Amino acid sequence: MKRLIFLSSLSILLFSCAQKQERTINSDVLSSEEIIDSTNIKTLFNSALTDGKSYEWLRDLTQNIGQRLSGSEGAAKSVIWGEKIMREVGLDSVWLQPVMVPHWVRGEKEIATYTLNGMQKNVPICALGFSIATPESGILAEVIEVKSLEEAKALGNKMEGKIVFFNRPFDDTLINTSSAYGGCVDQRVNGAAVCGEFGAKGVIVRSMTNSIDDFPHTGTMSYGDLPIEKYIPTAAISSKAANILSKDLKENPSLQFYFKQSCETLPDAPSFNVVGEIKGIETPENFVVVGGHLDSWDLGEGAHDDGTGIVQSLEVAYLFKKNNIKPKNTLRIVFFMNEENGTRGAKEYAALSKMNKENHIAGLESDFGGHTPRGFSIDGNTVNTQLLQSWKKLLSPYGLHDLDKGGSGADISPLKEENVTLVGYKPDSQRYFDYHHTSNDTFDKVNKRELELGSASMASIIYLMDKYLYSNTALKP
Amino acid sequence: MKRLIFLSSLSILLFSCAQKQERTINSDVLSSEEIIDSTNIKTLFNSALTDGKSYEWLRDLTQNIGQRLSGSEGAAKSVIWGEKIMREVGLDSVWLQPVMVPHWVRGEKEIATYTLNGMQKNVPICALGFSIATPESGILAEVIEVKSLEEAKALGNKMEGKIVFFNRPFDDTLINTSSAYGGCVDQRVNGAAVCGEFGAKGVIVRSMTNSIDDFPHTGTMSYGDLPIEKYIPTAAISSKAANILSKDLKENPSLQFYFKQSCETLPDAPSFNVVGEIKGIETPENFVVVGGHLDSWDLGEGAHDDGTGIVQSLEVAYLFKKNNIKPKNTLRIVFFMNEENGTRGAKEYAALSKMNKENHIAGLESDFGGHTPRGFSIDGNTVNTQLLQSWKKLLSPYGLHDLDKGGSGADISPLKEENVTLVGYKPDSQRYFDYHHTSNDTFDKVNKRELELGSASMASIIYLMDKYLYSNTALKP
Repeated sequence: MKRLIFLSSLSILLFSCAQKQERTINSDVLSSEEIIDSTNIKTLFNSALTDGKSYEWLRDLTQNIGQRLSGSEGAAKSVIWGEKIMREVGLDSVWLQPVMVPHWVRGEKEIATYTLNGMQKNVPICALGFSIATPESGILAEVIEVKSLEEAKALGNKMEGKIVFFNRPFDDTLINTSSAYGGCVDQRVNGAAVCGEFGAKGVIVRSMTNSIDDFPHTGTMSYGDLPIEKYIPTAAISSKAANILSKDLKENPSLQFYFKQSCETLPDAPSFNVVGEIKGIETPENFVVVGGHLDSWDLGEGAHDDGTGIVQSLEVAYLFKKNNIKPKNTLRIVFFMNEENGTRGAKEYAALSKMNKENHIAGLESDFGGHTPRGFSIDGNTVNTQLLQSWKKLLSPYGLHDLDKGGSGADISPLKEENVTLVGYKPDSQRYFDYHHTSNDTFDKVNKRELELGSASMASIIYLMDKYLYSNTALKP
Repeated sequence: MKRLIFLSSLSILLFSCAQKQERTINSDVLSSEEIIDSTNIKTLFNSALTDGKSYEWLRDLTQNIGQRLSGSEGAAKSVIWGEKIMREVGLDSVWLQPVMVPHWVRGEKEIATYTLNGMQKNVPICALGFSIATPESGILAEVIEVKSLEEAKALGNKMEGKIVFFNRPFDDTLINTSSAYGGCVDQRVNGAAVCGEFGAKGVIVRSMTNSIDDFPHTGTMSYGDLPIEKYIPTAAISSKAANILSKDLKENPSLQFYFKQSCETLPDAPSFNVVGEIKGIETPENFVVVGGHLDSWDLGEGAHDDGTGIVQSLEVAYLFKKNNIKPKNTLRIVFFMNEENGTRGAKEYAALSKMNKENHIAGLESDFGGHTPRGFSIDGNTVNTQLLQSWKKLLSPYGLHDLDKGGSGADISPLKEENVTLVGYKPDSQRYFDYHHTSNDTFDKVNKRELELGSASMASIIYLMDKYLYSNTALKP
C-alpha cells in the first residue's frame, strides 16, 4: 500500500509539474511601455475569463431568437436584440443603419430520393440560397457526376435533361480548413449557372465540409449572367450521401434521382446594421471598427456563424468599459446585416462612412467561428503590418502565434484603403466546417472558454491598434 | 438582381482570398537536409489526414471495450485488443510485459443528498479512486466548507464528526488549463488524509474542471501515512452542485449532508503493458519510445484520457511503415497500464529497460487529450532542447508553435536521465477538463481531424528525434 501511495502521488506530482508551465513574458525584454501593454492585455484576458458576458449573450441570441436569415422574422428580432444589448453595455451611442436586403425563403423541407436494386434511399439535401424551386412535382432525372466546373463545361449538351452532381471533396491535407473550402466552393456558387447554360435539369453539390456526415450544408449561389429562363434548381447533398450516391452511380449509371424544393426569392426587405460606439478621448474623428454579422443561414441557430463574432465584438467594448480603458479613437461596434447572401450591410456601412468622411484607421472582423484563438490575419500596408507583427511577444502567451499577412473578412473589406489596417480574427479552424451553414450550427457546439479567449484576443489587438496605429496616422499621405 | 449577384459572389471571393493562405515554408531558408525533412513531414501529415487509422481504432477501443480501470474486465480486454491491433499494424515484434496493478472498484452508484427549506436536493457525486466506502447506511453530518488544505488543518478538531467540503475552484485566468488543475488537485489527492487525521467523518471535493456542470470528476487520492483506522470516505461533487451547496451553506450552515458509496480496494491484480517495436536500421540497440496509457477511469469511455494517446502512438508506427520511413533507432510503441492510479506499468517498463540495459535516447507521451496540436513540452538537456527548438520552422506550418521547456508525462518520466530527451505532446487544453475523469469522456467528444493532426505531429517529432538525436549520442558521457 505504501508503495502504491507513493506512486500515485508521484504520478500526480509529475503531471502537475509537467503541465504547470503557464507561459509568461520575461519582463526584462520588454520596454516600460510594453510592460504597461502586457499588464493591460492580462487584465483584458482575466476579465473575459472571469466576468465575460459573451457566452450568455450567445445563448440568448441563438436559443431565444435562433436562425436569422436576411429578411426573416429572426433577422428582424436580432436587430432589436442587438440594439438592446448594445445599450445595456452602455455604449455612448447606438443606432440602426437601414439597408434593403435580399429575401430568399426555403419553403417546405426538401425531399430527395432514388431507388437502387429495389431499395429506396432517402437523401439529406437542402436548397442553396437564391436557388429557384423545382416544379411542384419535383425533378426526376439521370445523374452525371463531375468533379469541377471545367469537367461540367466539357460535357456541353450531354447534360441536357440530366441532373449534374458536383462531387469534388475538400482537400483534407490542407491544414487550414478554409483553404479546403476556398478550393471547393466554386461548385456551390457557380455550378447551376454553368449547367443551366447547357440545359441541365438541376444541380446537386457535395456539401462544403471535411466531415463525412448526414448534414447538408447550404450557402449562397449565383446564376451569374444566365437569362432567367435558364435558371435551374440547385441543392446541397450531405457528404455521406454524396459518397453513397457516387458508389451507387458506378453500380447503376442510369439511376433516376428525384428531388423537390419550394424555395423562392421574394422582393428585397428592409433591415438594419446595428452600430454602437465609444467616443475616442483623443481623436474621436478617427474610427477603429470591430464587428461580425448578425444574419445567419436558416438551418441551425447561427452559433459559430456568426453569433460568436457578434458577441465577441460587443465583448470588446464591454471589456474596455469594465476595465476603464478609454480608446483614443472612436471604437465602433458593428453588427453587420446580410453577410451570408449579399453583404448589403457591409456595402451600406462603407458607403455611409465614405459619405460622412469618417476616417477609419483600423478594422477587425470575427467571422470564422468561436474556437480557440490562434492569431490574426493582417491586411495592411507594410509599415503597419510589421508594427502588428512586432506585438507577437505580447500576444503569444495567449496562444496567438499566427500573425501572417492575409485577408480580413467580407464585412470590413469594403473599408480597404492604403492606410487602413484590416484584421481577421483567426480561431482554430478544424471543427468549423463540421457546423458551417448546417442545422448542426447550434449553441451547444460553442465552448465558453474558447469563446471568451477569443473576445479577449480581439480586445487585445484592438487595444494595441487603437494605441499605436493612432500615432501612426502621421503616416497618412 | 445583377447587383445582388455581384455582391454575393464578391463576398465568397473575399472569404476565399482572406482564408486561402495555407502556411508554407519558404524553401529558400531551408538547407537541403531540411528540405528533405520538410517533405517527409508533409508526407506524414498528408498520410494521417487522408488514410489515418486512429479514429476507427479509437471508436473500437472506446465503444466496443469502453472503460478500462486497472484490474477491471475492460482493462483486460484492452490488453488483448492492444496486442491484436499492434500485430495488425505489422510491427516487427509485439509482446506483453506482466505487471501487478491496484484493483479498486467503485461498487454501486453513489448517492448524495441534503434538504434545504424542506426541499430535498440530489447531488451528483462520485467516489475518488482508492477511497474507502461509507458505512452501508451512509454518512450524515454537517458540512464545513474550506478552500485549502491549510484552512482545513487550521480547523483541527473542529472538523470532528463533520464532512469537510473542499471548494477551491480552478483559476480560470490561467490560459493553460492544466496549470489550473495543478493548482487545485492537492484538495482531491490529500484532502481525506488531512481531515482523517482530525476525525472528520468524510470529505467531498469540488470537481477538477473549469466547466460549471453536473459531471462529478473522479481521480486518484491517497491516505498518505494515515493509520488505516483513520481512513475516511471521500468523493467528488460536480462543480455546479458545489456552487449550490456553498450558497445553501450560507443560508443554513448546519444543514445535514448525506452520502453513501460502496467502493473498495481489492488485492492487486495481474495486468500488462503492451509493447511493440520497429527495429532500427542503423543502431537498433538505441530506443525511441512513444506511448500513452491503456487504462482509464471507470466513468466514461476513456476517450480523451487516454484512448487518443494510445491510438496516436500506434499511428506513429503506422505512418512510418506506410510511408516506408525506416527508423535509425528502434522505435518502440508502449501502451502503458495503470497510469491513473499507480503508474505501475511505467515503473515496470523503466525497471525492465534498466535491467536489460536498453539505451533509450528519446521518449514521447500523449496524455493530454486529442484536441488540435499546439506543440510539445521538452524535458532534455540544453543541447538537445535547443536542437528540438531549432525545428520550429519545420513544425510551425502545422500549428506547432509551442516548444518550451517543461515536463513530459507520468509514464515516460521514469526513463529520465541526463541525455534522454523526453517530450510531452501538447494539444489545445481548453476543453480537456470538460471531460477528464467523467462519464462525459466519450468517443463523440473527439474530432477526427484534430486526432489525426496529433498523430502526424507526434510522428513528425519522432522522425526528427530519431534522425538527429541519433547522431547526437556522441554527446553521451
